[in-house]
Order: sequence, then structure tokens, then C-alpha cells
Amino acid sequence: MSKELIQIFDTTLRDGEQVPGCKLNTQQKVIIATQLDRLGVDIIEAGFPASSPGDFQAVKKVSNIVKNAIVCGLTRAVEKDIEVAYEALSKARRPRIHTGIGTSDSHIKYKFNSSRKNILERTHRAVSYAKSYVEDIEFYAEDAGRTDNDYLAQVCEAAIKAGATVLNIPDTTGYCLPAEYGAKIKYLKEHVKGIDKVVLSCHCHNDLGLATANAIEGILHGARQIECTVNGIGERAGNTALEEVVMILKQHPNLELDTQIKTKELFATSQLVAHHMGMLTQPNKAIVGANAFAHSSGIHQDGVIKNRETYEIMNPKDVGVTNSAIVLTARSGRAALAYKAKNIGYEMTKIQLDDVYSNFLKFADRHKEIMDSDIHQIIETSNVYNEIISA
Amino acid sequence: MSKELIQIFDTTLRDGEQVPGCKLNTQQKVIIATQLDRLGVDIIEAGFPASSPGDFQAVKKVSNIVKNAIVCGLTRAVEKDIEVAYEALSKARRPRIHTGIGTSDSHIKYKFNSSRKNILERTHRAVSYAKSYVEDIEFYAEDAGRTDNDYLAQVCEAAIKAGATVLNIPDTTGYCLPAEYGAKIKYLKEHVKGIDKVVLSCHCHNDLGLATANAIEGILHGARQIECTVNGIGERAGNTALEEVVMILKQHPNLELDTQIKTKELFATSQLVAHHMGMLTQPNKAIVGANAFAHSSGIHQDGVIKNRETYEIMNPKDVGVTNSAIVLTARSGRAALAYKAKNIGYEMTKIQLDDVYSNFLKFADRHKEIMDSDIHQIIETSNVYNEIISA
Repeated sequence: MSKELIQIFDTTLRDGEQVPGCKLNTQQKVIIATQLDRLGVDIIEAGFPASSPGDFQAVKKVSNIVKNAIVCGLTRAVEKDIEVAYEALSKARRPRIHTGIGTSDSHIKYKFNSSRKNILERTHRAVSYAKSYVEDIEFYAEDAGRTDNDYLAQVCEAAIKAGATVLNIPDTTGYCLPAEYGAKIKYLKEHVKGIDKVVLSCHCHNDLGLATANAIEGILHGARQIECTVNGIGERAGNTALEEVVMILKQHPNLELDTQIKTKELFATSQLVAHHMGMLTQPNKAIVGANAFAHSSGIHQDGVIKNRETYEIMNPKDVGVTNSAIVLTARSGRAALAYKAKNIGYEMTKIQLDDVYSNFLKFADRHKEIMDSDIHQIIETSNVYNEIISA
Repeated sequence: MSKELIQIFDTTLRDGEQVPGCKLNTQQKVIIATQLDRLGVDIIEAGFPASSPGDFQAVKKVSNIVKNAIVCGLTRAVEKDIEVAYEALSKARRPRIHTGIGTSDSHIKYKFNSSRKNILERTHRAVSYAKSYVEDIEFYAEDAGRTDNDYLAQVCEAAIKAGATVLNIPDTTGYCLPAEYGAKIKYLKEHVKGIDKVVLSCHCHNDLGLATANAIEGILHGARQIECTVNGIGERAGNTALEEVVMILKQHPNLELDTQIKTKELFATSQLVAHHMGMLTQPNKAIVGANAFAHSSGIHQDGVIKNRETYEIMNPKDVGVTNSAIVLTARSGRAALAYKAKNIGYEMTKIQLDDVYSNFLKFADRHKEIMDSDIHQIIETSNVYNEIISA
């Protein structure tokens, strides 16, 4: 059965890079873009060319080196921005201009001191102008999450009429609940004239911890592109995490959706981005955190040793992690201790294990983590040491 | 309009502490439990008393000092575990025993080498036995996420008949999609005899980045308790993050649900747990990360300065963060620069600002973040410095 492909629009270098204190230089952006292309993302948003000379240079360099992905540059709905973006993208094999404007009443009033009618006109004008430069135009309706659906549909129609190929529906403030965001996408699919000629795109923020769930809910209601960043980085609480949405679709085959991502490159990509951004992932980060596949409680370790699928829903190798670690702590049970001991050369009978285990618990209560070197010591100081080594 | 209260079951000290290399000692657990009680959680799961002498001591000490919350101890469906838990909890003002067993076919077969019928019997026996010690018994159906709904309903009925007061439905492996987890809770609400006498509890893991969304979906379908940890810590990719579910309910008043959490204590609690676990939150962690309220792009900063609600859906003060930082980077616009400059004593005309801003961009392209001390330097080396200071 062939699965429908969801486009992965990576914005690590644009929205992801909007992190205080984590600016990337051009060389770093080129290194990351090269890896993103290898990972198999469909679109690389390389920057916001009109925002600074450094960003312009970065988009230009990334356009030169990317072999497969579409390269995209962000603009405001401003002619000068669009011209500068086109110039930065001119060497890209597959260029896309991403233009847009705020559409919520809050943005229209406080940011633009404007009117709904005027924003509709600016939408049409910006997309038309961008279309005079390149064929592939994505339009974003900033703060779509707080824009009423009826007006949002009008904005989408204006963008489609002007030639947009992709419509980005951002939950800019990360406020939407999954059901609400899904309903918004569904409304647009049902009410916007010409919607079937364009791709709807989910762009979600993680202020309430729902960026991944919202993007998936959007896909389940008809969107076909997800905007995301490696490690979920980005301004404030960041964006939808690329590795999470990719693995959700892969591990839920019944959805009949997939991406073109080479998942075995996920871990390396995560490490590369974390290193260059100087922004480490927390150990409990889903998919790519240091502990994502580490089991420490006795109950869990026992289960994993008996059968990996008892507690693991993914094979760590599928995301490029070479082995799930069994880590010994005071919560570990006999089975885990026996397993680790065997790995370093000690086979124990059940009675021997009982004795070594009581020694282990005393030791473990005073230590956060028990290393292989500690296991040697624990066994050497047990009452049964001579029995074990002479077996 | 009065809102319905959702119980917050904090398992930072039990499931949260199952992190390789992050064992807490008894004193640290007491410090954290004291803060959790101040934060206003309804239940503190203090440990798994039978798992090690250290855990037993910690549950005992926490039971002694907690003033308001229910104190809970975990057990397997094993008499000895239950006896030890009761002993550890004996000084708690409001004790709860949390017992349970794996119910998915994978757990029944590989972990217990048992049968569905036998697991039903052990469920009834364990809950009954625990009930002979304390009144408040929570039952967990481990791996409920992968347990078929019909059998899960039978297990729940057995636990209710034996006296359970709370039924915990864990998505142990973090595999469920929100719609799937919500449907499971709904099924139980509709098919389990006596379900209205007990509280259904969501216990979700974050392996696919969906722990928060799943817990909320459970609540929307009838569950009334959320099991969660501070900072979302825990084994592998961790648990539902307390701060996220609490703020989702608070910021979505239309759901007519709330918790008793004193949200202004959230940031301090997060810092305390991160410090004692030696497990830092990533800067883009929702609600409590260092950047959760930091704006760096020019477009966003301009919006926030004009009207906070343009990009902020929460008041940082509500979670104990005293101020949202405007951080200057190469992406910052004129408005942000003017704002920060004013804070350190420089008022500029529009023309002066243009000159200083071009100087700023050159500087910013070479630096990750611009500090107040840099702003002094940028202004001092601009062409308009003398004009500005003599104004």
C-alpha cells in the first residue's frame, strides 16, 4: 500500500535560529544545510534575506550548495524584501519565496494600524509581486491561530488568486489546542475556493507544549506540509520538532502517511545543530535526547531484557542511535545487574546474584549511577566473589 | 462560573526520578516535596518503597513533612511491596497506595508469562490487600496504551470491585496518538461498571513528543487526574510536564477546567528540581525554559513593544518569571534597539536611530548576542554619538 507523502519544511536556519545568543555564521549555516539536504528534507528555509547583510549572504551561499531540497527565503509583504530575497535565492536550483502578513485582529490593529480590507489587498499584492520573480510562492497568514476562520479563508483565497502554491497557517503564539488547530485546517479545506490546487502547511509553536500534536492534527485534517526545526529549537519555546513528527508518522503506519526523511540521519543532525547553535537538548528530549532510549528502573530493565518491545516502541537504530543503554541505579533489579555483569565477564547463579545484589543496593543508594568499573568492585567485595570467579 | 478541578498527581520523585545518573538523596527529596506541597499539587508520589532501602526512607521522611497533599507510594501487585509501602506511608496525614500490573498482551506474555485471567485475579487480590491497609487505593494498568479496550475495561471493573478509588491508565511506552488515548478514556467512561465512583487518571510518556497533548485529550474525554513531573523529567523521554498541563488549563478558560496549582511557584519549582536532579531544562522548554518568554526577531520584538499580547499568550509573571527579556541579535529591528538603548539612558531621534542601527547591524553580524555593554559601545562609535549625548 503506498503512503501519501508529507512535505517536511525545515526552518532550523530561519525560525529555529531566532534564539537569543545562538546566531549561526554563514559557514555554520552551510554545514547544517548540507546535512539537512542529506537528511532528505523537502524544503530548507535558509533565512530572511532582507533582515541583515549576514542573513542575505547565508541564503545566497545555501542556495549555491543545496542539491535536492527547495531553498526558501522569508520576506514581509514588502516589495523591497521580496526583491532582496529573489536576489539571495537566484542561484538556487529550486527557489521558493515565503511572503506574508499578520491577519489576526490583534496584528492588524496593533502591528499594522490597518484594516482587514487593506490586509487582503496587501496579501494579493505581495504574492503577485513575488510571483513575478519565481513560480513557487508560499504565503503565511501570521497569527492565523488567533485569526477568525471566515476572514482567514478570505485571505487564503486572495493568496491563491495571486498565485500562491503553498498556504502556511501559523499558530504564531503557540496558543491553539490540537482540536482547535485541526478544525481550522478542516475549515479551510472545506471553505476556500481553489484550496485543492495548493498545499496547506502547519507551522506551530510550542509555548504550551503542543507544537508537535498541533502539527499532526493539522495533517490529519488535510494539511500536507509541516514546518519544523531540528530539536524543536526557535524563538521562545520553539517550533514543532522535526524528529518528532517524522517518527510519529513512521511509527504509525495505519495513518498511511510518511515523509522522505532518512531517519537514520536524525541523531547526527540533532547533534550537529545542537553543537553549532550552542544549544543542547535536554536528556529527556523525545527521539534525540541522551536518555531517549535509556531505561533505569528495575521493572523496565527486566522487561527490555526479556523482550525489547515491552518498553520500546522504536528501534534506536532507526534514528541513528546505535544502542539503547541499560543504566544501573538504585532502582535497577537483579535482571539488569546480571545482564551488565555478564557483559563484563561474570556469570552468576541465582544464589550468588542474591548476595551480590544486596551489596549492589547498599552501594547504589550512595551513588547516582553505577558504572562498569563499579560493578567489578561490587562483585569483588561480595561474599561470593571467590565462588563466581572460580565457576 | 465555577470550574471543575483537575487533580495534579506529581510523580517527580518517583517516575521522574527514574533518570539514569540523577538519583536524589533523601534530603533532596524532602526539599522538593516541601516545594511541591507549597506549589499546591494534590498528590505527591514519593517513591517505590520496596525498591531499595533509600527509597523506603525517602517515602517515610516525605510522609512526615507533607502538610496538605496526599502522599503516595508505588508497589507492584505483590503483597510484600504493599506491606512495605504501608509501613513507609504510615505517618502520612493522607496516604495512598498505588498498586498495579501490566495488562497488555506483550506484558502478560513476556513479562509475566501469564494469562489474561490470571492478571484479572492478581488485580483484584492486590487492590483488596492494599485496601486492608489504607482507604485510598490507586490502581495502574501498566501499558494500558497498548491494551485492548475490552480487556482493559474488565481489569478496571475488577479493580473497582476490590475497592480502588483511582484508576491510572498509563501510555507506558508513549506510543498513543492523542485521538487514540482520548478514545480509550472515553471507552472506559462508557463501558466500565462503577466508573463514576472513581477518578480516571492520565499517565503519559513523551517518547513521540505527545505526553502533554495525550493527557489533555484524556481530560477532555472524562479523566480527572493528570500524572506529571516537573520539567517533564523521567525515564527515556520523560513524562507529561506539570507546568504545561497546568498552564494549558489556566490559559483556556473556555474548557471550564482548572487546577489548584499556585502557578507563580512554577518557575521556582522548575529551577529547584533541575538543580537537584542535575538535569537542566533546554532553553526552549515550554513555560519554564530560559527562553520561554524571550523574543529575538525584529518583527516579534517590535510587536511585543507595541502590545504584549501580539506575541505573548501568557503573562510571564503568572508562572513566576519576573520579566520577558528583549534580547538583541542581528535579527532585531530598530524598535528593539531604541527600547534597549532607552533603558540604559539614550533617547534617539529617528534619524539618529538610523545611523546607530546600521552600526548595530555590522556589530551584530559578528556577535551572537548584544549585551547592554555592547549597546554603549555601538552608540559611542556611531557618527551621531555627540548629538545623542548633547541632546
